[in-house]
Amino acid sequence: MALIFVTGNRHKVEEVSELAARHGIELEHRDTPYIEIQADELEQVVRPGVQQACALLRQTCFAEDAGLFIEVLHGFPGPYSNFVFRTLGNEGLLKLMTGENDRRAEFRSAVGYCEPSKRPEVFMGKVEGTIALKAKGTRGFAFDTIFVPSEGDGRTFAEMSTGEKNRLSHRARAIEAFFRWYKQK
Amino acid sequence: MALIFVTGNRHKVEEVSELAARHGIELEHRDTPYIEIQADELEQVVRPGVQQACALLRQTCFAEDAGLFIEVLHGFPGPYSNFVFRTLGNEGLLKLMTGENDRRAEFRSAVGYCEPSKRPEVFMGKVEGTIALKAKGTRGFAFDTIFVPSEGDGRTFAEMSTGEKNRLSHRARAIEAFFRWYKQK
Repeated sequence: MALIFVTGNRHKVEEVSELAARHGIELEHRDTPYIEIQADELEQVVRPGVQQACALLRQTCFAEDAGLFIEVLHGFPGPYSNFVFRTLGNEGLLKLMTGENDRRAEFRSAVGYCEPSKRPEVFMGKVEGTIALKAKGTRGFAFDTIFVPSEGDGRTFAEMSTGEKNRLSHRARAIEAFFRWYKQK
Repeated sequence: MALIFVTGNRHKVEEVSELAARHGIELEHRDTPYIEIQADELEQVVRPGVQQACALLRQTCFAEDAGLFIEVLHGFPGPYSNFVFRTLGNEGLLKLMTGENDRRAEFRSAVGYCEPSKRPEVFMGKVEGTIALKAKGTRGFAFDTIFVPSEGDGRTFAEMSTGEKNRLSHRARAIEAFFRWYKQK
C-alpha cells in the first residue's frame, strides 16, 4: 500500500520521491490542507498538523515542515520561512545580513507521521551552513539559492541536482530517519 | 460581571483597561495560553484562538491580535510581528527599510469575542502611518518606537502616553468597535 505524503509543495514531492524510490517505498501525494500553528520549534508545528491531516484523510500519512534558522538573527526566519520568503524573499534576507560577519545558519526539517487514532511520531533532520553573499543557482526552492551547506563544495542548494541536495539536506536526513524506522515497523 | 480579556501582554492590559474604564466596563485579565495558527490575516488567527480560550475557561472572553503590515515589504511582518520583534527587533526592520522611499505601513488589530458554545465575533481596527528613520520613544511596546501614525503630530506611538495612543491606535479602534457592540447586546 502506498505511503501518503501530505504537502502542497511540488519541490518537496520531487525530493522525497527520489528518497522513497531508493528505499523501495511507494509514495502517494495528497495536497490536503492542514493547519500550521505558530510555534518557535518545527516539531510543535508538524505534530498537530499531521494529526489533523490524518484525521481528515482517515488514512496513515506523513507531512514535513522545514525552516532556515540564522544564528545572528536569533533563529529568524525559522518556522515562518514560507511567509518570509513570500514577503521579503532572498533579497530581504541578504539585506538583513549586510555587514554581518557571522553568516552561520541551519536548515531544519521535521517529519511527522500519523496513523488514525494514534499519536504522531516526529523525526528531525538538520544541516549546518552559511548564508551566501549573493543568490546563486536556479534549482530547489525558497532559500536554497542563498544557503551553502558546510559539508558541500561551496555551491548553494540551488546549484545542486535533487540527488546531490538529497545527499546532505536537512529534509533528506529527517526523511531517511523516518523511512528507516518505517521499514522496520 | 467582569468581562475577561485573555492576553499575556501587560501593555495590552494597560491600553484596554483605560478604554474599558471610559465605557464603564469592568475588566478581568487572564493569561490563559491559547493556540495561534499561521495565517496571513489576523482575523484567521484570533477567531480559533478566542474560541479555544473560551472553551478552556468555560467563560465568555475576548482576545486581541495585532500586527504591523509594511507596504513595500508585502505585508511583512504582519501576523508574525511578535516573533519578528523577538528575533530581528526594531533594528532589523529599520535595516530592511534602509534606502526605501515608500515607508507606508499599517498597524492592524483584530479583537475576537466568544461566549461558550457560540461562534466568535471579530472586530477589526487599523491605523495608517509610516516607518520612522530611527527608533524614538520609550513607552508602548514592540514596534511602537518606529511607527508614526499619519493622523498624529509626527511622534511615534512610543512617544505617546497610553491615553494619546488610545485616541488613534488600531487596537483602540478595534476595542471601541467591540465595546460599543457589547454594551448594546
